[in-house]
Formats: sequence, C-alpha cells, structure tokens
Amino acid sequence: MIIVTRKGVTPDELDHIRERIEAEGLRTHVSQGEHRTIVGCIGDEERLQTVPLLSIPGVEAVHRVLKPYKLASRDFAAESTTISLGNTVLGGQEVVTIAGPCSVEGRDMLKVTAEAVHAHGARGLRGGAFKPRSSPYSFQGLGEEGLQILAEVREQTGLPVVTEVMDTRQVELVASYADMLQIGARNMQNFSLLTEVGRVQRPVLLKRGMSATVEDLLLAAEYVMSQGNPNVVLCERGIRTFGTATRNTFDLAAIPVLKRETHLPVVADPSHAGGSRSLVTPLSLAAVAAGADGLLVEVHPDPETATSDGEQSLDFPEFNELMASLRPFVEAAGRTMA
Amino acid sequence: MIIVTRKGVTPDELDHIRERIEAEGLRTHVSQGEHRTIVGCIGDEERLQTVPLLSIPGVEAVHRVLKPYKLASRDFAAESTTISLGNTVLGGQEVVTIAGPCSVEGRDMLKVTAEAVHAHGARGLRGGAFKPRSSPYSFQGLGEEGLQILAEVREQTGLPVVTEVMDTRQVELVASYADMLQIGARNMQNFSLLTEVGRVQRPVLLKRGMSATVEDLLLAAEYVMSQGNPNVVLCERGIRTFGTATRNTFDLAAIPVLKRETHLPVVADPSHAGGSRSLVTPLSLAAVAAGADGLLVEVHPDPETATSDGEQSLDFPEFNELMASLRPFVEAAGRTMA
Amino acid sequence: MIIVTRKGVTPDELDHIRERIEAEGLRTHVSQGEHRTIVGCIGDEERLQTVPLLSIPGVEAVHRVLKPYKLASRDFAAESTTISLGNTVLGGQEVVTIAGPCSVEGRDMLKVTAEAVHAHGARGLRGGAFKPRSSPYSFQGLGEEGLQILAEVREQTGLPVVTEVMDTRQVELVASYADMLQIGARNMQNFSLLTEVGRVQRPVLLKRGMSATVEDLLLAAEYVMSQGNPNVVLCERGIRTFGTATRNTFDLAAIPVLKRETHLPVVADPSHAGGSRSLVTPLSLAAVAAGADGLLVEVHPDPETATSDGEQSLDFPEFNELMASLRPFVEAAGRTMA
Amino acid sequence: MIIVTRKGVTPDELDHIRERIEAEGLRTHVSQGEHRTIVGCIGDEERLQTVPLLSIPGVEAVHRVLKPYKLASRDFAAESTTISLGNTVLGGQEVVTIAGPCSVEGRDMLKVTAEAVHAHGARGLRGGAFKPRSSPYSFQGLGEEGLQILAEVREQTGLPVVTEVMDTRQVELVASYADMLQIGARNMQNFSLLTEVGRVQRPVLLKRGMSATVEDLLLAAEYVMSQGNPNVVLCERGIRTFGTATRNTFDLAAIPVLKRETHLPVVADPSHAGGSRSLVTPLSLAAVAAGADGLLVEVHPDPETATSDGEQSLDFPEFNELMASLRPFVEAAGRTMA
Repeated sequence: MIIVTRKGVTPDELDHIRERIEAEGLRTHVSQGEHRTIVGCIGDEERLQTVPLLSIPGVEAVHRVLKPYKLASRDFAAESTTISLGNTVLGGQEVVTIAGPCSVEGRDMLKVTAEAVHAHGARGLRGGAFKPRSSPYSFQGLGEEGLQILAEVREQTGLPVVTEVMDTRQVELVASYADMLQIGARNMQNFSLLTEVGRVQRPVLLKRGMSATVEDLLLAAEYVMSQGNPNVVLCERGIRTFGTATRNTFDLAAIPVLKRETHLPVVADPSHAGGSRSLVTPLSLAAVAAGADGLLVEVHPDPETATSDGEQSLDFPEFNELMASLRPFVEAAGRTMA
Repeated sequence: MIIVTRKGVTPDELDHIRERIEAEGLRTHVSQGEHRTIVGCIGDEERLQTVPLLSIPGVEAVHRVLKPYKLASRDFAAESTTISLGNTVLGGQEVVTIAGPCSVEGRDMLKVTAEAVHAHGARGLRGGAFKPRSSPYSFQGLGEEGLQILAEVREQTGLPVVTEVMDTRQVELVASYADMLQIGARNMQNFSLLTEVGRVQRPVLLKRGMSATVEDLLLAAEYVMSQGNPNVVLCERGIRTFGTATRNTFDLAAIPVLKRETHLPVVADPSHAGGSRSLVTPLSLAAVAAGADGLLVEVHPDPETATSDGEQSLDFPEFNELMASLRPFVEAAGRTMA
Repeated sequence: MIIVTRKGVTPDELDHIRERIEAEGLRTHVSQGEHRTIVGCIGDEERLQTVPLLSIPGVEAVHRVLKPYKLASRDFAAESTTISLGNTVLGGQEVVTIAGPCSVEGRDMLKVTAEAVHAHGARGLRGGAFKPRSSPYSFQGLGEEGLQILAEVREQTGLPVVTEVMDTRQVELVASYADMLQIGARNMQNFSLLTEVGRVQRPVLLKRGMSATVEDLLLAAEYVMSQGNPNVVLCERGIRTFGTATRNTFDLAAIPVLKRETHLPVVADPSHAGGSRSLVTPLSLAAVAAGADGLLVEVHPDPETATSDGEQSLDFPEFNELMASLRPFVEAAGRTMA
Repeated sequence: MIIVTRKGVTPDELDHIRERIEAEGLRTHVSQGEHRTIVGCIGDEERLQTVPLLSIPGVEAVHRVLKPYKLASRDFAAESTTISLGNTVLGGQEVVTIAGPCSVEGRDMLKVTAEAVHAHGARGLRGGAFKPRSSPYSFQGLGEEGLQILAEVREQTGLPVVTEVMDTRQVELVASYADMLQIGARNMQNFSLLTEVGRVQRPVLLKRGMSATVEDLLLAAEYVMSQGNPNVVLCERGIRTFGTATRNTFDLAAIPVLKRETHLPVVADPSHAGGSRSLVTPLSLAAVAAGADGLLVEVHPDPETATSDGEQSLDFPEFNELMASLRPFVEAAGRTMA
C-alpha cells in the first residue's frame, strides 16, 4: 500500500498517518518528493484492507500494490485448473460447448434439444429450472420439476447438466440434481449465495455481473473458493454499456485478461452477450480465437415459441452450423473439440 | 406493441407475423410505408411480453407502447404514496433523514451515533448487521447480534431502524427486528429475495443496482409489490460509469424522473453515490433541490476507525453541519424537516 | 511515480527499470516487500510522462503521484478565478444564467428570446450560429449571418453573447463577434481547436465531452491555458452511460469535484444533461445547490417549431418559472442572482 | 415514425399532433388502444427528423422506423464496397494488416519499421505526423516533416501510407502525402473535419469515438459520404466503459453488427482497444474470427523508448509472431492474407 499525502500535509498529520499504519503491524517508509510526501507501507497489506485510509486527515490517494484476491490468482496456482464436466474437463485442451434451452419448458422439448446438441458436439446440457426474470409477470421456470426433467434427460443422453441456482435455500436441492451450479449475472454479488455454493462440492459456473469489473468477478470467485469449493468456472457474458446495438457489450478482452490473472477456466456466453441469433456464431468464433475454454449456447427446438430468450436461441440447424464453423477455429487455436 | 418488418419482408412472413400476434388474442393493423411495413398490435400488450417477437422471420424491430411495470406506475396511483417510518412518513411533506453507521460495530458506538444523529434531526437509524462486502476477507457484520443492538438502541432513542437483509433465509428474522428492510444495490435483481420481502409487510428500502436503469428499478419494486407488499421506498445511490473521480456516478436526474414515473417515495444516498466525506453535503443539498423525499447518510463516531465505508462516513460535527446546511434548501423546496 | 514490479522480477530487470528512470534525471528508491518490489521515482515526475513505463519488462503497474494538469489545478491558484461576462463575472458570488435558443434561427426570434430571458434575469445570451449535428441532413446553423444577428441583438439588449466555434478556421471570425467562445462536447478533445482558442483572448466555455473524465476535462482546459488564454469556464452537461431515461446522465458530483480540483468557474447545462423540458428546473436547482457558478439554459419562443433541441427548450413562461424557482435556492446557497 | 401519446391525451392535443405531422406532408393513422392512443406517420419520415415531436403537448414517446443514415446503409448498397489501398483492397477477400508506429519519430525508425512489417505481411504503413494527445505537454508529432518521411518511406518500401488528419486546415496538405486519411476517435464527431475530408477523394479511415454508438459511427460516415467521398473504412478501436482492466473495452460484436448494417469495410485496432502488448494478438485473432476486413497494429523498433503508446506497441519479433498466429485464423475464416 502506498499513501500519497495532500499538498501541505502537516508533520502532525504525517505522524498520525504513520502511527495508524504501524498500529496494524506494518512498517512505513516516508519519501519526501518535490510536491508530495509519500508513505510506503511495508508488511502484510491485507491488514490494511479494512482501514479507511482515505478518511485519515492529510491522505490524498491510496495505491494498492497487491490484488485483493488470492486463491483465484495466478500467483496462487501457476498451473491452470481443470474442472470435470461429465466425460471431459473445462480448462484443458478441449474447447467445451454446453448447450440447451434458456428454460426447461417440458420433458419432450428438453429431450429433443439434448439429443440434437449432443449429436452436434455439445458436451454439456444447459437449461433453467429456476429463472431470474426482470419482470415478475414473466415465466419463472418449472422449479424442481425442471430439475427432475434435467436429470432424466441426463440419464437418456449422458450429457452432464448445468443449471442455475438463485436462492440459498435451493442450493442443496439444485446440487442434488445438477453437475454444475450456475450463478447468474444478477447474483454475481449475492454474497450469501456465493458463500452457500462454496460449501458444496459441485463445480460452479460463475457468470460475470453486468457491471462487474474483472476484479469484482475474481473476488466473487474468491468468495466461493474461500469457503472450500475450488471448482469455479468463470463466464464472460457481456457487460452493460451505452451501446444499444446489442443486448450487452461482449467484453472479449476479458477472456485473455482473465486467462492471465487467474488459473480458473474461462468460458463465454455468446447468446446473452449479443442477444441475437445472428451474433452467436461470430461471437463464438471470436471467443475461441481469444482463448476461451468453452461456450455456453442457447438452443431451442422452435425459438419463436420459446418462453424466454427466443430472440437469441439457435434452432437445431443453426447450432449444427455453429459447430461446423467452430471446428477450423478450434484447430487454428491448437485445441480440440468433440 | 408495434412491429417493424425488414425491408423486403415477404407476404408469407407478414401473414405469419400476424397469425403469431392474433394467436395471442390481439388484433393487428398493417400499415404499408414507403420503405417498411408496420404491424400495430391492438389489445392486451402484456400477452406479448413473453413472445420472442424478434425471433420471428421478417421482424426487424419491436417497439413497446406500455411500460412493463404496473403497480409501481403513476398510471396505477396518481396520488403519491406515503410510507410510515416511526413518527413520520416518507413521501410526504417532510424531507426525512435516516442516518447511522455503515456497520453496527457494537452497542456503544451505535448508541452514541443514534443519539448524535437524533439530536441533529435524523428520523431513522441505519446500520448494517449483515454486510455485503466485495471481498470475503472483509468484516461481514455482527449478524443477529447486530439486529439485537439495533432494537435496543431503538428502545433508547425512539429512532426506527432500517437495516439490510441479504438472504431469503433471514427475511423473517430481520423483519422481526427492523422497521424497514433494506435491499442493497447488489441484490436489486436478486428476485428470490425481492419475492420474499414482498411476502412480509415491513416497508422495503430498495436501492438501485449499479447497472440498473430506472425501468429495472421499477420492475424490481414491482416484484415486491406484486407479492402483496405495497410499501416500497426507492433509493438512488449512484450508478457505475466510466467516471473515476467519485466512487459511483450519482444519477441525480433519476430523482425527478422517478417522481414522474412512480407514486413511490424516492430517497438518495449521498454517501455511496460520492464515496467521500467531502461530497456528502453538496450531493444531499442537490438531492433535496431535485425533489428527493429523504436522505440516507452514513455517520460514524470516528470514521477513520470504521470497519467499513469510513472514507464516506461523516463524524458527528460534520453531520451537524450537513443538517444545518440542509434546512434552507428544504425550505426553498417548500418542504419541512425535523 | 511509483512502479510496482511483477512477482519474480529478476535483478537484471530491476536494474534496467532503475536505469531507465535515472536516465530521465530522477532518483529511485527500491522497497522490497513480501510479495512485490516497488520502485519509487523521486524528482520531476513530468519527465516520466512520455516514458511508456508499462512496456518495460518486469513492470506490473505504475501509480502516478501528481495530477497531469498544472495551470488548471487548485495547486496552481488557490484563489478562485473569475471571468468577465458583460456586466458580471463567472466564478464570483453571483449565480449567472446564460440563456437562449439552441440555434439562431432568425433575427426576430433571437430578439424576442433575448428580451424575454433578459427580463427574467439572464445575464448572457446563448445561441448557435455554427451547429454540430449528428446527422448531415439536419439544420447546420446560419453561419456568419447568425453571428451578425447575435451581435445586433447584443446591441439591442446589452446581453453578452456566448456562441460555439467548431472549426479552427472560424476562431478569429467567431471571436470577432462573440463575448465567449463555446467549445462543444464533441470537440472537447479536438486539440487543434483547443490550441487555437488558446491563442485568442476571448473567454472560453468548455463543455465536458460525453465520455470525458474530470481529468480529461481539466486536461482540455490545460490545452487552452497553456497557449496563453487563462479564461476558461468549465461546463458539466451530462455524460453517456447505460441510462436511457434521460438524454445524458447529469454527473452532478462533478460540480463539487471540479470546484475542489480547479480554480476555474464551473457551470451546468441542464438542458442537454436531461434532454427534456420537464427536467430543466430540477437539474438547475440541484446544480446551484451543489455549487455551480452558473447555468446554460435553452429557451425558444415556440419549442415545438425549433430547428434543433425543441424537446429540451423552455418557452418564455417556463423560463420565467425556472428563474423564480431558482431564487430561494441561490439564497440558500448564500449567493446572489440578477 | 410512430407517436405514442400520453395517458389521457385530449382530443385537442391529438388534433394538434396530427396537424403538426400533416403540415410536414405526411399522412397520419390513429389507432386507439386500451391504454394509449398511437399516431402512425405515413410518408417521408426524414421530413420529421427536425421536428421536436417530444415537445408537442400530449406526446409521450416517439419511435423511429427508419435508420437515420442512408448512403452508409446496406439498404443503399447490398454489395459490399471495396476500397483500394496500394496493391490491395479493403473489404474484399483479403484480411489486410496496416502496421507501423504510433508516431513518426524520425526517418530511420520509420524505415526499419516499414521494412519489418512489410516483410511480415503488412499491406499498409500507419504512423502519425499530427498527434492528438490528451496532455498539451506530450509530444505532438513532427507535423509536415513527418508527412515527408512517410512519403519517402512509401517510395522505399511500396507500402501505402495511412496517417491522421486533425485540423480542417491540414486536410489538403495531408491528402497530398497520404494514401488514406485517418480520422481519430476524438474527432469522430468533429463535423467540420468530416465535411472537409468528404470533399477530397482520398479514402478515409474513420475510427469509432469512445462514446459513439454504432449509429453515431454510421452517421459520421454519412457526413463524409454525403459530401461526395464514398470511400470510408470504419474502425472499431474500443469504447469507454466502467472497465479498468484494459485501456478501452473492445466492442467485438460491433464488427458483425457493422458488417450487417453497412456495405463499408470494417477494420479493428487491437492496439488501442486493449492498450497492452499482450492483448494485441488475442484481439486480432478474435477480430478476424468475427469478420473484420483488416487490422491496424502499432509496431515500434523499441517500444520502451517510443514517444507515444509504447505500452501497446509490438516490437518486430512480436509482430512477426502475430502475423504467423493470424494465418490459420484467416484461413479458418475462408479468407486470405499476404
């Protein structure tokens, strides 16, 4: 931690700043510049994290030296982490596609969708049983019945299941059905929920919040990991900006930035990022080119009748085309796909 | 709902669009323009809310005519709603200040703070027992003990208590202690939590999410109201933008926009919006000038030792000054304060 | 300047970093922390401004100690600067309102508008002769004829004239007619234009760019000042964010932040910030409450026939009401108005 | 244009709205809904562009049916436009890389850079003679001498030259040296400059402004085209958002969106988008995967001594690696490169 003092800081203020730091067990080094005096804090920076340094008289700015996350950091684990999903792993050589409908709408539609995406190379089945919807009047999902359907279709197709959990009270229930627990963008800083999924051992797919920085996302992963669950997959799904041409702004650069900052697997959700069927393929190809470990794609037997996200869901032929287009890019990236 | 079709839409596509709308029980009116054909949808627009119109072939754009919220809308209740808080109401003539520490750190600090803010005109006591913190390594609050302390201090000072609830499992507990339940910015789209606080009758203080539009905020209020709890107070607390000079960007214009769009009371949180002690007063004065019904202000006996938000907490003399500065602006606005 | 090195920086890299700094005439101080090594740079920080420190091997982060602007900084001039406008000054005790139409549409409309705003307390007349329009097909202003009309109306009413200059080739021309040169938001980083208005002695009204930080705005002012023209008035007029309820997001907190960071006068433009007639008054009151030195308000004899910005222009009775509403807030702020 | 009226609009207001529209030569169609009355405007929508419809009493919302740009639209030219650059074209089958230093710092450095990038497959040479810099104290470029050096190096290497023009007074001068005129992000809405480059016949490389929507960018292109210069290349170079992990947020999805909306070539600038050497390659690969027609890459013989943008400039071996990495992705996209 480095403290920059205000112009004209008094010796008394400077003394007080040093005492405050030293009271936390760190040492200080004062450096008198031409215009500003700087106080370097030497020792365990974490002890200063809870000290409101900016509220101490005479302090103008505070520069943190260390990242606020640890377990999620590349510093902690130089080797990339791989996380199992059915017969494959996320974070390894293979680019893994997880596909399926936004919502589980029924047994038949899920089964045909699972079969179709399986046939074209998907390695996991996504589908929401509990749905976070902006309006209370929209379809909220089938709930536990949706989970049962997901489990049945897993039996039939062999595809592992990724589904969202929205409520601390449902974590155990959802974990008993799902292979991977999804935390949605709107819950990325629902710290109670993060803590709770950190206490089960199911892998967690953590979607980036719409206004979350890369650091916020890694701190959210740290919540889960600090509770004992190291199996976190990060998902870039677009952020909220002034742009109106797409549903969200796909922050593609977050993919290589995350691959540099963390050892955790990173996947992309081109469906939510673009919000439009026509953008799913270009965004998927780009995500793979930028180093993504996998994709999360919405697929529906008949998008125009979907109860949610129909405008961004691929139908089966479109998914087939996506997977065919993807292959040469996966190979160009020196990776494999199913 | 108005549907704009793509250039060169075929008669078959047009027929299909009309059939899709009419199947939902609405009538259609086709208007052939020079460059585009437009399909007006006449009838109950809500029935189209779940139809992914953009995924229908030939559709280029969809324009919604009605707002997606109802109970929260001015259309629903032309009269402004007032919500009780102790001896006063929010949404009436009085500009109501709710003050207190970010976190309840202990019995003594809360008591002296409550007494100090009470003496200077606060009408409610804020203080967090359960704290949403970006880092899992930060102080997470005293939990139920914090709630007990809040209740005790209410007994001693008469100040009603506003405190945050973060977890669906705690709603009943927090409601048994608090006079008003705060939903934090990070939980504004935690729909499970919104639903749960909609099922109790305690008033709810709903803080705007960092990337929430005004419409998102009103839809979040709608969640609570649609469950049967009409007592929602909205809080502007700054949004996330590219700006770096302040912790958040205080969206002042949201105050008059909300007062126009909804009958619910609107308060401002100048502490989080600015993130700095020096900004609390100018932002408070501005909020009142723009029509806010109240303020939520962080106050701490010794901000530089606060376990959270010290850099934006006022000490007692600063709070006193704020309240003194506020009075002429409250009067200029034709309102009253304690 | 403080340099944080990467974990595992080698002694050779460290030596090279120090040599690079010392080659610029500064001294270095190395501080070996537990996790990171820090290099403090002591001396004239400006000499490092052009050195791409982040491109030096081993460097992880660079923290600047000094602000990159000087002449615009409070450090440079503790006393607030006042800038003359007709019979009054901006930056003094008086809250100064400058009003008029978006575009000068003709002699008569300008004259009646000037008379109306003058009668209600405006101290300056705004009006565009050269108009920056998003579409090439929109009305582009009357050009020099508009300037002549502005000058005539100044003669008739005594109101000093503020008008926009868009092109380096027009600076001399516009300066020969106007009392204050406006730089529009879209030209805030048109560095050629900033340089050119820095070479005349007319005061400059510099509007904040839609994506400009407070620091960017002050650097733009620095461009003008560094050429020899110290008379710069800063204008907050809203920034671009994800919000859709208003044309721009009025960054109210920028007003007190600017008043703290710079000695230059700060005004607000509630018309562009809100983009709507109904928001002009609440935003104006709030701007004054937050410390603004003046307001820039669009007024038109018949807004619904205006060639530009009609939706945000007040008519005469509305302007009258605004000025009447403003007075008690100006007084609450301990200031005066005409 | 579709006009939605306020709840409770009066018959008189409705009549006035219709008269206002019909006075512009359009017909109206009134549709009485359950909650709102809608006025469809039939005829030449452009005539309404300058009418401030929102300022007419009784109007609540206005929905535009047509895009505000024409010449730049896919509707105008279904065939993709190709624009010559030396021996190749932008917008055709080939993915074209334009590379070179941020600033022309001298004859030798430019020559060696041009030779190096030429050898590795660049088809154009970029380099700034006039530099837009945020600080007036930064290096502002060599000016005309820089242009002369660019022209000399073109003679020596055969690489066509792309360089920025910042000032209306320099357009003719720069056009006499350059093969393509760059308009920088900060000047994307410098309408005087856009108009001026529209009057010469040199192709224009138009960089997207930091807060420009896709529509704003296309309207800026329309400015140039409407003056008679149809040769505009669009460049995505990152937008300003809340993100701090990268210099700008690379809006990758803008590439396929632009390819759908316009017939003009679209290139990407991975150097400015990411702001970091380590991000240039992943962003370049992704841009090509998403359909970009070319890349604009900063290359410097010794980035750590560059006078500008050193932290994001590749050295020669890095550029070589980039081009080698690019090839399989270009082939995967079914395209070619030099």
